[in-house]
Amino acid sequence: MTRKDGREANELRSVTIERGWSEQAEGSALISFGRTKVLCTASFTNGVPRWLAGKGKGWVTAEYAMLPRSTNDRMDRESVKGKIGGRTHEISRLIGRSLRAVIDTKALGENTIVIDCDVLQADGGTRTAAITGAYVALVDAIEWGRSKGFIGKNAKAVIDSVAAVSVGIVDGEPLLDLAYVEDVRAETDMNVVMTGRGLFVEVQGTAEGAPFDRRELDSLLDLALSGGTELTALQTSALSS
Amino acid sequence: MTRKDGREANELRSVTIERGWSEQAEGSALISFGRTKVLCTASFTNGVPRWLAGKGKGWVTAEYAMLPRSTNDRMDRESVKGKIGGRTHEISRLIGRSLRAVIDTKALGENTIVIDCDVLQADGGTRTAAITGAYVALVDAIEWGRSKGFIGKNAKAVIDSVAAVSVGIVDGEPLLDLAYVEDVRAETDMNVVMTGRGLFVEVQGTAEGAPFDRRELDSLLDLALSGGTELTALQTSALSS
Amino acid sequence: MTRKDGREANELRSVTIERGWSEQAEGSALISFGRTKVLCTASFTNGVPRWLAGKGKGWVTAEYAMLPRSTNDRMDRESVKGKIGGRTHEISRLIGRSLRAVIDTKALGENTIVIDCDVLQADGGTRTAAITGAYVALVDAIEWGRSKGFIGKNAKAVIDSVAAVSVGIVDGEPLLDLAYVEDVRAETDMNVVMTGRGLFVEVQGTAEGAPFDRRELDSLLDLALSGGTELTALQTSALSS
Amino acid sequence: MTRKDGREANELRSVTIERGWSEQAEGSALISFGRTKVLCTASFTNGVPRWLAGKGKGWVTAEYAMLPRSTNDRMDRESVKGKIGGRTHEISRLIGRSLRAVIDTKALGENTIVIDCDVLQADGGTRTAAITGAYVALVDAIEWGRSKGFIGKNAKAVIDSVAAVSVGIVDGEPLLDLAYVEDVRAETDMNVVMTGRGLFVEVQGTAEGAPFDRRELDSLLDLALSGGTELTALQTSALSS
Amino acid sequence: MTRKDGREANELRSVTIERGWSEQAEGSALISFGRTKVLCTASFTNGVPRWLAGKGKGWVTAEYAMLPRSTNDRMDRESVKGKIGGRTHEISRLIGRSLRAVIDTKALGENTIVIDCDVLQADGGTRTAAITGAYVALVDAIEWGRSKGFIGKNAKAVIDSVAAVSVGIVDGEPLLDLAYVEDVRAETDMNVVMTGRGLFVEVQGTAEGAPFDRRELDSLLDLALSGGTELTALQTSALSS
Amino acid sequence: MTRKDGREANELRSVTIERGWSEQAEGSALISFGRTKVLCTASFTNGVPRWLAGKGKGWVTAEYAMLPRSTNDRMDRESVKGKIGGRTHEISRLIGRSLRAVIDTKALGENTIVIDCDVLQADGGTRTAAITGAYVALVDAIEWGRSKGFIGKNAKAVIDSVAAVSVGIVDGEPLLDLAYVEDVRAETDMNVVMTGRGLFVEVQGTAEGAPFDRRELDSLLDLALSGGTELTALQTSALSS
Repeated sequence: MTRKDGREANELRSVTIERGWSEQAEGSALISFGRTKVLCTASFTNGVPRWLAGKGKGWVTAEYAMLPRSTNDRMDRESVKGKIGGRTHEISRLIGRSLRAVIDTKALGENTIVIDCDVLQADGGTRTAAITGAYVALVDAIEWGRSKGFIGKNAKAVIDSVAAVSVGIVDGEPLLDLAYVEDVRAETDMNVVMTGRGLFVEVQGTAEGAPFDRRELDSLLDLALSGGTELTALQTSALSS
Repeated sequence: MTRKDGREANELRSVTIERGWSEQAEGSALISFGRTKVLCTASFTNGVPRWLAGKGKGWVTAEYAMLPRSTNDRMDRESVKGKIGGRTHEISRLIGRSLRAVIDTKALGENTIVIDCDVLQADGGTRTAAITGAYVALVDAIEWGRSKGFIGKNAKAVIDSVAAVSVGIVDGEPLLDLAYVEDVRAETDMNVVMTGRGLFVEVQGTAEGAPFDRRELDSLLDLALSGGTELTALQTSALSS
Repeated sequence: MTRKDGREANELRSVTIERGWSEQAEGSALISFGRTKVLCTASFTNGVPRWLAGKGKGWVTAEYAMLPRSTNDRMDRESVKGKIGGRTHEISRLIGRSLRAVIDTKALGENTIVIDCDVLQADGGTRTAAITGAYVALVDAIEWGRSKGFIGKNAKAVIDSVAAVSVGIVDGEPLLDLAYVEDVRAETDMNVVMTGRGLFVEVQGTAEGAPFDRRELDSLLDLALSGGTELTALQTSALSS
Repeated sequence: MTRKDGREANELRSVTIERGWSEQAEGSALISFGRTKVLCTASFTNGVPRWLAGKGKGWVTAEYAMLPRSTNDRMDRESVKGKIGGRTHEISRLIGRSLRAVIDTKALGENTIVIDCDVLQADGGTRTAAITGAYVALVDAIEWGRSKGFIGKNAKAVIDSVAAVSVGIVDGEPLLDLAYVEDVRAETDMNVVMTGRGLFVEVQGTAEGAPFDRRELDSLLDLALSGGTELTALQTSALSS
Repeated sequence: MTRKDGREANELRSVTIERGWSEQAEGSALISFGRTKVLCTASFTNGVPRWLAGKGKGWVTAEYAMLPRSTNDRMDRESVKGKIGGRTHEISRLIGRSLRAVIDTKALGENTIVIDCDVLQADGGTRTAAITGAYVALVDAIEWGRSKGFIGKNAKAVIDSVAAVSVGIVDGEPLLDLAYVEDVRAETDMNVVMTGRGLFVEVQGTAEGAPFDRRELDSLLDLALSGGTELTALQTSALSS
Repeated sequence: MTRKDGREANELRSVTIERGWSEQAEGSALISFGRTKVLCTASFTNGVPRWLAGKGKGWVTAEYAMLPRSTNDRMDRESVKGKIGGRTHEISRLIGRSLRAVIDTKALGENTIVIDCDVLQADGGTRTAAITGAYVALVDAIEWGRSKGFIGKNAKAVIDSVAAVSVGIVDGEPLLDLAYVEDVRAETDMNVVMTGRGLFVEVQGTAEGAPFDRRELDSLLDLALSGGTELTALQTSALSS
């Protein structure tokens, strides 16, 4: 079976990372997973929220949102509706947890980094693209903080890299990095967040159609880990350019 | 190692299901996982939301909430704050998806069932208790609908049972059904939603501390499946009494 | 005339008070007036809101809410609607005022007690059951505060007991403690909050149908006072067990 | 004892009713109880809310609000805060119920009247002034509806008049129509809504300080009824001018 | 051409300013532009918002709102809707900016004045009437602050006066001070805020129908400046009475 | 005087228009005015809002928003705050009015176009860039609608082009197209919306510091018109490529 866009089952879409896209944020990246485009900016503030003050630890958090016409049909703005939907909340929390998993908050010191992930165009995999791009923006914001003297010269605030990819079972076949047309037809959909060392940070598998068995779960994890390796390489390359 | 409450690593807390606790709902269950108590009520309405009308399918959805003093420290009410937090949204959506995974919406017909899961007392595992209790309430509401003629006599609306349990790694050891004191210390925390046939509906694993590897993931899934089998038996027993 | 449930005009429904129902709150009571069930929890905090600080006085407040399926037909959650309805506000304020009427806030010292009254099942008289149960929870929270040294050993913080009951005129006859089916048919509906000594804290009479005259008002007050005496005895008994 | 403003205990403040103050509303009155000034407008719409449609009945409802600087200290606007406070809700509901008590909704036909009571200046008794003025605006709106043919020529939509006054016990003495300085010192505060025939629509007595006994309640009701008689005469006079 | 109400093209409606209408605000004015009536109150507070503290400067801000039945058809209350509309926001900001343009905030000292402009009756030109009346209330509040010693005896806090008027092109003819019936038919609508010295503070011209050219713009500005001169005289007269 | 970025007083920043940036919207443009970047998307829907139905007219509206880190300091998201600020409202309304000024809604037919203008990076002039880019997106969406048969083949829905530019007086000198550093120092700030034929749609001048006189107003309008001519040429070029 070949996929609609000609990819192999275990093939990522074309992934590009434009590091430093924003001229104003302390770190930023415009990441594309095929037609999915997410602008990730990292805002560095010296100091921490009140509830964390005086503990010698930093804080990293994230907010995710979609532009109203990032999708095929225009969605109402959450600011106009006056409340944030469940899906938005859920993804914002996922991105924040994923990033914190690779940060040593003691080494970060009493500094706060807020990562904004705004989806400019959506074609499936927006949350995984967001996490993958957010890591790049985060690293740059930390280096900015170090250059300003807010973080110790040798403080190892970043203890591993983190990336994410979606996998799913479509027509019985496990596929890597689902595009929107695949996502809506998937029987099982899984988002996997992994570190550069190949450890899991989050595994979120959902039966959209029929429940899945252990063997299917295993094959999806295999696919995800191989995709994660590729994404890690792309992040490394973007950060060294 | 013995656990604080004397349980073995692979032992559930005492689980009780008071079916029909509410005298007014079409289905209900007050479920306890140890000190965690969740009141699940199912409200049956003939008809479906407008966006689903005319498709010959039913709808099942869920709302989760905690009483302000279900926890050790009182939380502000979400109704008073004027908005629902991310965690509440996330769990409501999880419960709804979990229940829909075992429902044949065509067989349900154009009927809507809303499941409310209100946590009266919280000691860890509120979402897994909620799913496990909600299934019992849901089955009773469907039978109520059948008795009123809203669902066909032989329509097989429920295609499997569904239950959920938390597992986690605490001090390096995989444990089943975490109590609150264990949950806050867990390095990895996983919620697993399973059907009576042993298939997965949702697998949500999160590294709270260090990321986890494939072997740890596997041992957690083993534990979860064994707990799922026990919960299925308790549901069956409650529904046959 | 006998009432639908066989009671005499001046007879309360079966009232039960499960003191200490919650294992986590500083005081609690699950109270039933017939099928009406309200869970009352009291949360004790050392210290007072900013606007009261430094005056040597404590604060007691209350919040009332109904579970969405406590009623015959499911109501939308106020947290989901994003705002609290007028009735909820009104009853929360009534419960708070009623409790403060029997508290010496100087003797309470700079401590705050929040009473949550959550209606688990509603069959008329939820606000009166809430007040009656809240008093029991409040007394226990105060004793907890005393045991922790936050309140002076001999400080007489509770100066009287308080209980409440509904009365109304149905088909021309004054009735005590209206069940829901009676409440909806009442021409006049009155909620009376009384102290253990037989004094009034609140008298709220409303003509639902035709306006009422002075003689009717008097007969309703007579009924309410007799019901109040019984409720006071039940509170005393619950608190001494 | 003479009161601060020289009144006798059983004396109303100077009450004026400027009928037809608004040139645009179907009925209106600017009412003053001393320095308290409330603008009441009645908006007539042919038709009823959806939940009442097809029953041959009309609907009367009310909204109460205070201008931010109607009080001695400026209050934040409820529109800016984004939610309506409990007190506002409570008073809006009280006004609505009071007016509906004297309306025959069948005779009103399928018409809706919304009464807005906006407090321009507040010096105690705003809710009682609002009810008293709202009645005048309501009658005019009904006559407007009749003149347009929306209400039958001989339909007796208004079955009685309605007015309201506050009474309270200050320094042990029962007083009629409390000004703000009296209200804040009152031990007991009662709002009484009465019809022109001297029947009660609402009796809301609250112990602000010590609870009150039956004898005090009786003396307050006596005062209120005498004040009601005067207010009824003023309404009649305004409506006949 | 004569206008519907008999005015000349360059004629203001009858303008009245009842200075000191409110007995409680530090400054107030009830201003009428024909049937348009706006109650302007100024609330003086010693001190400034936190973001301005310690800079030796004062703050002046404004809030505008319409009573629900100030208009021909009743509007829903913004407090009930739970949010403020764009038009309300826009006008509140305009009034605030207009007043600040004639205030020397250094001379005002660390004091805050909030101007509330509540439209009691609307017949076009509510924002311009509000600005014109607000200036009078503001001056009185500043004098109140001076009399209490919060503002220096000789501090020249008010550096010019400010007034506003609408102009527009109706059926090709430039008109001054549009009434509602003219406003809805205007091809171009302009609000001009001017100082007593004839300088511009705000010029807001909008093509409601066809775009306008430079010559039309000029003729509208001429009209506005002549109206401004008259309004300045009326303000001076009100403030000297 | 030369400006900080080396421009002449009457020189625009470098303006680029990437037409069709979004692959999903019916029309789109990513427009830059120097470092200011705004993504404009146009969403076409056959049909109109209910209040306009059956009149044979179309509707064009706009929503403006800034990404939280489009600015130098991160702003809170309006969706998280739960309400839209006054400035956002004001600009959304301005964009909508500006576009409608060049549309013949009869020729558009019963179709709705929503223009979203999301500021990706802000360096002054975001509202003027938004209007200028929105026009390009709007034209493409109309052509899309025509190609689908929703708009008549020869229907002249667009009657003129529209563009906008800011002008202001900085240190006494009138400047075209203010960058952020100029904007904050401007004594007077004016946004001018013009058609391709050189007519005004909106003129919004504000004295940020001292009020301005007629001569200053005239020189600003001259500058704006010259800038408008250039922008019109750039729009024409983008639409013909």
